[in-house]
Amino acid sequence: MAAEGPLLLSLDLSGTFVFALNGAMTAVRAAKLDIVGVVALAMITGLGGGIIRDILIGAAPPATFRDWRYLAVAGGGGLVAFVLSRALNRFALTITMLDAAGLGLFAVTGTSKALAFGLGAGQAVILGVITGVGGGTLRDVLIREIPTVLYSGLYAIPALIAAIITAAATRGHLYGSPAAVAAAGACFAVRMIGVHFDLNVPGPPGARANRGKRATGGDGF
Amino acid sequence: MAAEGPLLLSLDLSGTFVFALNGAMTAVRAAKLDIVGVVALAMITGLGGGIIRDILIGAAPPATFRDWRYLAVAGGGGLVAFVLSRALNRFALTITMLDAAGLGLFAVTGTSKALAFGLGAGQAVILGVITGVGGGTLRDVLIREIPTVLYSGLYAIPALIAAIITAAATRGHLYGSPAAVAAAGACFAVRMIGVHFDLNVPGPPGARANRGKRATGGDGF
Amino acid sequence: MAAEGPLLLSLDLSGTFVFALNGAMTAVRAAKLDIVGVVALAMITGLGGGIIRDILIGAAPPATFRDWRYLAVAGGGGLVAFVLSRALNRFALTITMLDAAGLGLFAVTGTSKALAFGLGAGQAVILGVITGVGGGTLRDVLIREIPTVLYSGLYAIPALIAAIITAAATRGHLYGSPAAVAAAGACFAVRMIGVHFDLNVPGPPGARANRGKRATGGDGF
Repeated sequence: MAAEGPLLLSLDLSGTFVFALNGAMTAVRAAKLDIVGVVALAMITGLGGGIIRDILIGAAPPATFRDWRYLAVAGGGGLVAFVLSRALNRFALTITMLDAAGLGLFAVTGTSKALAFGLGAGQAVILGVITGVGGGTLRDVLIREIPTVLYSGLYAIPALIAAIITAAATRGHLYGSPAAVAAAGACFAVRMIGVHFDLNVPGPPGARANRGKRATGGDGF
Repeated sequence: MAAEGPLLLSLDLSGTFVFALNGAMTAVRAAKLDIVGVVALAMITGLGGGIIRDILIGAAPPATFRDWRYLAVAGGGGLVAFVLSRALNRFALTITMLDAAGLGLFAVTGTSKALAFGLGAGQAVILGVITGVGGGTLRDVLIREIPTVLYSGLYAIPALIAAIITAAATRGHLYGSPAAVAAAGACFAVRMIGVHFDLNVPGPPGARANRGKRATGGDGF
Repeated sequence: MAAEGPLLLSLDLSGTFVFALNGAMTAVRAAKLDIVGVVALAMITGLGGGIIRDILIGAAPPATFRDWRYLAVAGGGGLVAFVLSRALNRFALTITMLDAAGLGLFAVTGTSKALAFGLGAGQAVILGVITGVGGGTLRDVLIREIPTVLYSGLYAIPALIAAIITAAATRGHLYGSPAAVAAAGACFAVRMIGVHFDLNVPGPPGARANRGKRATGGDGF
């Protein structure tokens, strides 16, 4: 854990920040919330994945409530996005990119922290995916959207790729900053390629998959 | 616990499997999700109740993340239902029956595990009901349905019956495979009778209870 | 903890009761649920905040499942509100007042219990707010409303005030029944003033905040 501490913390805080920006921008665009609602949704989006992860691996109270920097980064990210919302909104792509970045970062921290707590590799991978998609799923439920993870095939898959790379690197004693960045980067790249080419995975045999776009924006460019 | 281990595990895995099938079929019918969404909703429906139970009784990480069989059974159930969705869909009754079976099985495991962790009988009964309805409630929230437990009176009641039988049998030192199967079976029977005869419990005095059927199927035949 | 035990318990049970009444009345008014749904929503609203608090601070199983009085008070409150729903409904203000009272009481217990479990003051304040808004947020998600905390600026702010007073009083060794009642009362007063004068906090620069009222009542008079 000695070497893992600072790496986990920096990845976690980065994921918290980008998800907080994403949550705040979603709040401004999709739900037209006021400043308290924007900061609240930013904090839930930024902190949700890590809180779910820590509760599930038995690390309560979650890191969020032990280290003040989590709350500061999430709240600060929400305030920044609130103030800059007009400027940021010119880049419709930004929300999607921040979400993809947070997805990869949290998939890595979820997997690596689960392994550090003694879970098996398969379970750690699933926990990594849950950590990656958790904050965004809470965000979507609260603003009454169907969560992206359910209807967009190429959302869980990139998180799964990051989680598998992390677990494999850890098992091969190769885990460290380069592997973590590579895993999160692979997730980001696959997610953005999927969004750009509007790729999807197959629907049920004989049925049409639901490729409907969200009316409220926030996904796709 | 020596004798309880295998019984709890087999009931839990059975509940996980039937709820996973139910979740996948709901995903195909109600929300028209793709393969990742179907498997994700299957896993959430199959594993949700047990995860909530284990977090609430202080048994983190949940059994789901300690024993790979939970993930395998839930994921496998989701894949099976995805592949066979056309065939399974001919039986509209199937979704409701799987749900009733999962409800009973998890009400039993929730109550019995809560008692094993030292909770009082009343609290264990409530925890059993929460375990029974938890996975389906997560499923309904994620696909934006009002949870069955809130509007269908004869949904919580059967779970309550199974939980009370389990708690009484445990207190009377009669708990074992026969009692567990009887409790889950009683829940299943009461639930299916309620569905068949469209029974409901009373609404508020002077008001009409909401007997609205879900537009998306998944309940009633 | 010796002196804190009875105070925390009485505040917690009071918050549970008023939130249970509120949840039941919301269930009757907004969602037209039957008796099981009404009692279920009452229990979720009344117990949700405290359960979330105890899980987050690592106090599983939550007080709810250790002390039968929580379940009795929540279930009893739900039944009372169900039976009296016609009479209670004449006072549209009642739902909002019960909600404001529960908000303040739980913000106090959340902050004070988090401090007792060793969390820092800033984190304890956030945890207090989460405890205050938790039950109502679960209620809103389950009946498919956008949670009040997200769109009504003067909902989180009063909870924040109660949490800050509680944390400051505890740090100054002044915490006790008078401080707790003052903190919860300040929250209640600020919330009701905000509702009465329809006050709101600012929306994003250049945008219009969503001041939409909920169609289902339950908020505003």
